[in-house]
Amino acid sequence: MKAITSTQNPLVKQLVLLKEKSRERKKNELFVLEGKRELSLAIKAGYRIKTLLFYPDLFSESEAEAMAKYGIEIIEISKEVFQKLAHRDTTEGVIAVVRTKSHLLRDLKLHSKNPLILVAEAPEKPGNIGALLRTADAANIDAVIIANPKSDLYNPNIVRASVGCVFSTQIAIATSEEVIRYLKHLNFNIYSAVLQESEPYHQQDYIAPTAIVVGTEATGLTQEWRDAATQNIHIPMQGTIDSMNVSVAAGILIFEAKRQRKFTS
Amino acid sequence: MKAITSTQNPLVKQLVLLKEKSRERKKNELFVLEGKRELSLAIKAGYRIKTLLFYPDLFSESEAEAMAKYGIEIIEISKEVFQKLAHRDTTEGVIAVVRTKSHLLRDLKLHSKNPLILVAEAPEKPGNIGALLRTADAANIDAVIIANPKSDLYNPNIVRASVGCVFSTQIAIATSEEVIRYLKHLNFNIYSAVLQESEPYHQQDYIAPTAIVVGTEATGLTQEWRDAATQNIHIPMQGTIDSMNVSVAAGILIFEAKRQRKFTS
Repeated sequence: MKAITSTQNPLVKQLVLLKEKSRERKKNELFVLEGKRELSLAIKAGYRIKTLLFYPDLFSESEAEAMAKYGIEIIEISKEVFQKLAHRDTTEGVIAVVRTKSHLLRDLKLHSKNPLILVAEAPEKPGNIGALLRTADAANIDAVIIANPKSDLYNPNIVRASVGCVFSTQIAIATSEEVIRYLKHLNFNIYSAVLQESEPYHQQDYIAPTAIVVGTEATGLTQEWRDAATQNIHIPMQGTIDSMNVSVAAGILIFEAKRQRKFTS
Repeated sequence: MKAITSTQNPLVKQLVLLKEKSRERKKNELFVLEGKRELSLAIKAGYRIKTLLFYPDLFSESEAEAMAKYGIEIIEISKEVFQKLAHRDTTEGVIAVVRTKSHLLRDLKLHSKNPLILVAEAPEKPGNIGALLRTADAANIDAVIIANPKSDLYNPNIVRASVGCVFSTQIAIATSEEVIRYLKHLNFNIYSAVLQESEPYHQQDYIAPTAIVVGTEATGLTQEWRDAATQNIHIPMQGTIDSMNVSVAAGILIFEAKRQRKFTS
């Protein structure tokens, strides 16, 4: 079995780049994940593991060798290499190099008769994207679509903040124009969350195929989403500051739809 | 007017300690805030400003002198001192030393006939506490109560994450035991969010005086809140990961109560 003991090893350096640089992830179509739970969720979701690095004090060699049967390259690493690569204390001795997915709209599989989709336009903060994906998983909606992305999905902070929901949720990424065309083609009702010229969210009917669309906290949704909406909606703001976290707002809207659907679809 | 140009000045050192150390804030009953908007919200909320430091390239001397009329000590600071003290780029040249409030349960003023209160037990992450306070402000609920606090409210990361809602919202801090006694004495219905032995949240009635209680993401609520509950409730989890951000969960519960109250109380 191959082993790496030096933090100066070229593969270690490549992994650091893959963790830090979106450009490297895109160019190589690879990303780095940490932790047993994340690894198992990624495998279950059909992600292809290219290389598995393990630190034998925390992850057993037999567990690693079991992965080798599936054609995965297995590399034992030293404590120094592990500490250089691991982002967290709870990484459980395992780090994997994984092939990214393409996240095309046309690959989305909508199983429900009346699908429910969350669209987030240009979300920025990894913590918010993670929270959106956790909400999507908890509500078991059909898909999350990221329109006009600001970052790639495999940023280690997004993977971590999503507690693995980045793997358990169907995600597509496209321009807002493409997403609008896709949703209209499939006869979705589009509910764009904006403050201006909109109706209170709780007076709408979310039973038919529904896309709930949220923008950024700083600038909201672009005009094209306002124009494309079946109905623009807002959450009534009754405080003095008129400000809500975008993932909280999305959670309120998604679960109002779930409530109307009696949690059966 | 007094001026400070050296980052070695004792007051500058004290301010750095006040920003970094909860212990210092408690001992001195003082905290540091940054930014015009936060300053104006704190003043509006009745906070006592002790000292105002301004960097004249960004904050006008006449504005600062206007504050001196209210008995506030005004100090001009150099660029170096400002950069040492300012957490953000958007601080707009003003930093204030402000007296903390005591946040006693008995000081809460419940104006509504059927008050709605959010209780967060032992919340930890500043980002989550900030998002909870933003939701509380947006919904204009009567109060937020922090039970068994893990941190003090004037941590700069909480103040920042709350975008000023730490000032616009009534907040009390006490032990869980004291909070339960307070709520029972006032005949509140207590809805504790837990997963075990609980009813779906959307099948409850939140019209009467209501306290919605959320715990930490890691360990949930303590047994005393389960025992004290009028009804334990849960948000149906239909995904593969069973995990939701605590501020998203609180938002869903609070706004279901608001929806039932037709946003009129």
